Amino acid sequence: MPVFLNARDAGFEEAFQTLLSAKREDSPDVDATVAQIIADVRARGDAAVIDLTQKFDRLSLTPATLRISEDDINAAAAQVPQQEHAALALAADRIRAYHARQRPTDAEWVDETGATLGWRWTPVAAAGLYVPGGLASYPSSVLMNAIPAKVAGVPRLAMVVPTPDGVLNPLVLVAAKLAGVDEIYRIGGAQAIAALAYGTETIAPVDKITGPGNAFVAAAKRRVFGKVGIDMIAGPSEILVIADADNDPDWIALDLLSQAEHDESAQSILITTDASFGQAVAKAVEKRLETMQRRVIAGPSWRDFGAVITVPDLETATALSDRIAPEHLELCVADPDGLGAQITHAGAIFLGQWTPEAIGDYVGGPNHVLPTARSARFSSGLSVLDFVKRTTLARMTPEALRAIGPAAETLATSESLEAHGLSVTARLRKLNDG
Amino acid sequence: MPVFLNARDAGFEEAFQTLLSAKREDSPDVDATVAQIIADVRARGDAAVIDLTQKFDRLSLTPATLRISEDDINAAAAQVPQQEHAALALAADRIRAYHARQRPTDAEWVDETGATLGWRWTPVAAAGLYVPGGLASYPSSVLMNAIPAKVAGVPRLAMVVPTPDGVLNPLVLVAAKLAGVDEIYRIGGAQAIAALAYGTETIAPVDKITGPGNAFVAAAKRRVFGKVGIDMIAGPSEILVIADADNDPDWIALDLLSQAEHDESAQSILITTDASFGQAVAKAVEKRLETMQRRVIAGPSWRDFGAVITVPDLETATALSDRIAPEHLELCVADPDGLGAQITHAGAIFLGQWTPEAIGDYVGGPNHVLPTARSARFSSGLSVLDFVKRTTLARMTPEALRAIGPAAETLATSESLEAHGLSVTARLRKLNDG
Repeated sequence: MPVFLNARDAGFEEAFQTLLSAKREDSPDVDATVAQIIADVRARGDAAVIDLTQKFDRLSLTPATLRISEDDINAAAAQVPQQEHAALALAADRIRAYHARQRPTDAEWVDETGATLGWRWTPVAAAGLYVPGGLASYPSSVLMNAIPAKVAGVPRLAMVVPTPDGVLNPLVLVAAKLAGVDEIYRIGGAQAIAALAYGTETIAPVDKITGPGNAFVAAAKRRVFGKVGIDMIAGPSEILVIADADNDPDWIALDLLSQAEHDESAQSILITTDASFGQAVAKAVEKRLETMQRRVIAGPSWRDFGAVITVPDLETATALSDRIAPEHLELCVADPDGLGAQITHAGAIFLGQWTPEAIGDYVGGPNHVLPTARSARFSSGLSVLDFVKRTTLARMTPEALRAIGPAAETLATSESLEAHGLSVTARLRKLNDG
Repeated sequence: MPVFLNARDAGFEEAFQTLLSAKREDSPDVDATVAQIIADVRARGDAAVIDLTQKFDRLSLTPATLRISEDDINAAAAQVPQQEHAALALAADRIRAYHARQRPTDAEWVDETGATLGWRWTPVAAAGLYVPGGLASYPSSVLMNAIPAKVAGVPRLAMVVPTPDGVLNPLVLVAAKLAGVDEIYRIGGAQAIAALAYGTETIAPVDKITGPGNAFVAAAKRRVFGKVGIDMIAGPSEILVIADADNDPDWIALDLLSQAEHDESAQSILITTDASFGQAVAKAVEKRLETMQRRVIAGPSWRDFGAVITVPDLETATALSDRIAPEHLELCVADPDGLGAQITHAGAIFLGQWTPEAIGDYVGGPNHVLPTARSARFSSGLSVLDFVKRTTLARMTPEALRAIGPAAETLATSESLEAHGLSVTARLRKLNDG
């Protein structure tokens, strides 16, 4: 049974705190194993990657077959039905159009002293994209990771995807092709992360690695962080739906279940102003669970971590929502824009009853890689900004240096950084000696 | 002796690789100690922080004296000479003006299907700023960390600064006041990071922590990452100067020394098109080292990690610079803007001989918290963006859902995520049933 709470009840605050702090995932500690794998790949390169792929994926590779050939990609693409190809293409177009607006702009200006100041954005030279194998090998995630990189202008995008026993999802290859991925390697796990970060004879190193993965992949990303950039380490997915009574309980039930079906550790929460509507949604969830394909996943998720919270008004709902800082927030209320404007912490907001969260997973345009586990308090979903970096620019004129140099000398002296001060003093002396 | 290299020499590539991969810092492994400290602060709150401050800083505190009072701050400010106060105020104004231009803009548009898409930026609710005690307690760093947070609109900014034996730099308090810091606590080390991340009875938790620190602070930041956001873990500082022969060797020597004096592990590199100019700079460095206050730091830095590289032309210089991806890059050449435009990876560029790097440390306007250890390949200096996060927005109309919903259904089916598909199907059915 999910938790049923009412914000008016005496014990509510304590129960809500318990809900907020529930630990939904126990990651196995694989750090020692991962450290060994990374050291092995750094020492032996391709040979280590090939041995580890034999061991973990039961697949025999050579340096020549590490990379998936253009022919293999085209052969896979030919198997994909036209309807799926078209759906992926539509998704790619919409994601590209959305992210194209995120390109940051350069700036340059002259200030009142005559100094020219500004900054310039440039893409990383090479990015690596991790794509899980097996059940969680989602072509939509390929689009969501690869397209922002290509929109950012990353010239080289290398993808890794494990193919246990040689099995590969052809849709993943089609998605990679649509997104403009430049190289694809049939490797996975910590060994693939190590190969991307440090390079091997066959795989050139990259500067930034993104994409989801299991505990080994997450531990490897943490370990190579600093040598390369990484995206956030994602936790299990979450949805919060705020809904008034003027909704179809079955729609809301399906929205809650579309998170629950991802993972037994996923969390789906409904906040409603109407207790009996909450009961109706819970009933609809149970009914849908009876026949759902993934009920062995969605059922435990809903029963262990699901919650239905009744609140006296929508102001209470937004206050609770900001404390949850949900990854996905659906606002199924009469004035979703008005309510949305009051939300401060959320990864993505889906406004109104015609915007199920699943639209955002595939074809809405915004990214579906979003901050989990309350990290929307301080971080954002994946974007073009993850694949660019900024160089700041400053150019003094003699006049500008005369205006602000003495303050730099004073501060350098007070920080006991003599050479800092002298580097200004020497120039000012020349100006004054004229 | 620094390394002297010539890009025309046979062994150059190997020698340059050695320079690139030189390990300049051995961080002690303090992770186990830090884990204990964090656990202690989580378990015992203020009492743990007070005990640890007694132990490490030899300072007796109570919950009431953890925070530095307004009176103490004002008393400290009264001690600071007017010249230093004015210099800090000028720096604060210029840093604020530069960072004000970094505020990102919200977006909202209606696409061709009638869907409304966009995003909104909001500040983190609370940020914590770590300021080291002792020798590296720099008021300029307080400005560089605190001002971007305040420009971002962070409503609560809490600062921690250890005061070993009770000693505190009054300029640090003046800088905090000028920057708009809301709370200051006289604590440091891993215990201060734990208090900021998890909160105690006296210190409310924050959402993001920035600022430099020693190995304990760095390890603590790594450990609390995920619970809160952190900035980059900075390594020792670096400067690369590209200079032609038309420069005063002494100016360039001072610029190189202004990095070297920070830390024995700092690195200063000169790339020049004129070998004899390179020799003249090296000679000027040695001369300045004879009398420099911090020669016991700057000397070893220059001799162990310094380098003078002669190149045949400026194109070679920019190519080498991009491989170094320097934290600070000075371009002392005839056309610095033209050369700067060819640089892809650098934290900050200082254009022309009137722009010593020290200007950027204090009063230029751009941030002096910059990516070290070649991480300018994938990351940027501190900015307003570090204190805000983006919420994506999507609102479908019935017509928009009709246009793109079927593609979402197709992709959900191909990913075996049934509830995702059904959440769209249920709504489309209603539309089609009228």
